[in-house]
Amino acid sequence: MTVSDTLSPAATRYADPGLTLAATTPVIEQQLRHRSVRAFLPEPVTDDELTAIVAAASSAPTSSNLQAWSVVAVTDPERKARLATLAAGQRFIDTAPLLLVWVADLDRHHRLAERHGRPLGATAYLESTLLGVIDTALAAQNALVALESLGLGAVFVGAVRNRPAEVAAELGLPQHTVAAFGLAVGHPDPDEDADVKPRLPQSAVLHRERYDAAAADAELDTYDARLAAYNQAHGLAGAWSERVLARLAGPESLVGRDRLREILTERDLPSR
Amino acid sequence: MTVSDTLSPAATRYADPGLTLAATTPVIEQQLRHRSVRAFLPEPVTDDELTAIVAAASSAPTSSNLQAWSVVAVTDPERKARLATLAAGQRFIDTAPLLLVWVADLDRHHRLAERHGRPLGATAYLESTLLGVIDTALAAQNALVALESLGLGAVFVGAVRNRPAEVAAELGLPQHTVAAFGLAVGHPDPDEDADVKPRLPQSAVLHRERYDAAAADAELDTYDARLAAYNQAHGLAGAWSERVLARLAGPESLVGRDRLREILTERDLPSR
Repeated sequence: MTVSDTLSPAATRYADPGLTLAATTPVIEQQLRHRSVRAFLPEPVTDDELTAIVAAASSAPTSSNLQAWSVVAVTDPERKARLATLAAGQRFIDTAPLLLVWVADLDRHHRLAERHGRPLGATAYLESTLLGVIDTALAAQNALVALESLGLGAVFVGAVRNRPAEVAAELGLPQHTVAAFGLAVGHPDPDEDADVKPRLPQSAVLHRERYDAAAADAELDTYDARLAAYNQAHGLAGAWSERVLARLAGPESLVGRDRLREILTERDLPSR
Repeated sequence: MTVSDTLSPAATRYADPGLTLAATTPVIEQQLRHRSVRAFLPEPVTDDELTAIVAAASSAPTSSNLQAWSVVAVTDPERKARLATLAAGQRFIDTAPLLLVWVADLDRHHRLAERHGRPLGATAYLESTLLGVIDTALAAQNALVALESLGLGAVFVGAVRNRPAEVAAELGLPQHTVAAFGLAVGHPDPDEDADVKPRLPQSAVLHRERYDAAAADAELDTYDARLAAYNQAHGLAGAWSERVLARLAGPESLVGRDRLREILTERDLPSR
């Protein structure tokens, strides 16, 4: 029995035993129970499930209805293995029956402009790259909520941004697009030690009327203690602060992503 | 009675009358019914509801658990009115009892680094800005799904990126942060003509194994016809293609957002 089995979903989410939500819904309870799944049973994700997941993704909001995203569904074991190698060698991707690669996509609009003989100057700006990435993230998060409601599990794979040019070549991505992140999907292996990771308390992320840095940081020591306990219980080392400082120390901790702007320029997303 | 009342949620989402999902859940059906709400009843969003919405946001995945986002809850009518003015004068924001401003936030990590006397060089790169924006979008989409499950409605407001420096001043945002988008929240006014907007067919966004531009564009004419009919029924002009080409024509169609990179640099998010 893990701690998650004995507390309310909100208490587990915040590692704060007394916490319950006064307003809640079955949807919110499902969201609170989200956990990253990195071990999967061999059972495939069906086409009907994939259709439902993409329908949920398409139902997310999108800036000006531009729908600046695409998704590539990868099930071929050899392609998945090559993508796992490109994504920092995260071999759990091999065991996922489905890898969804979420693509910020402004090429659809470029193809349209070319057919109509019209200019498309706005896509050269950082704003458009950000818009594409935001559209992609909103769609992908809806996909995650949908697939979890189907009993599937998943984890996002940001490491596809380590080698964006190679990932683009593997997937045949056109110019004006970039893989924003992957999502490894499948039926969760019940033997995996996948638990609900405690988050920063609401005092740290929620501000009223104006941003208040002192209030936001007041409970950081408490959170550090909670996350250190969680990490220790799951064979990981360190509190939140230590891990953050290591992860963001310098360009070398970006494992190649410090070249992202240069690569976006090469992919005709110049982020002016 | 609108079309949305007579078709399956999937048929309405794609404006494709025969469409149903072979695999679905109540959560997915809720997601399919998402619509942008821009008219609200005066009834406030309660603190208990806000707590549940933020708990859902905190439950979204986050890259390396960095949690690089914050949210500012604005209910003060005068502040909301000033923000509406900054956000392209979208006056419906005045009628929303709650405006959530979602902030890509790397300043929490900078404050931590300063307290510990440690370097934080990775945040100078575009990768870190994108990571913050992705974390923010994942959290915000979870918030949207949660609030809709509570019977509330909302619409994202990308126009807070038109004047990021002024928005930051209004909200007291520190350096190393930027408002990514707003979310106007409240109880939907039942008299509003807010309907489910049809999206691109799955053939346009879902690729198998590798990106296929020809397959993606094969049904664009069909979609243009569907969206033109939807627009006409809701007092809007034009098909999808026409609106996309106008929206992305050049820097002038970005209404100030062509300066975003420069402003991010001023805000110590240099996007190197």
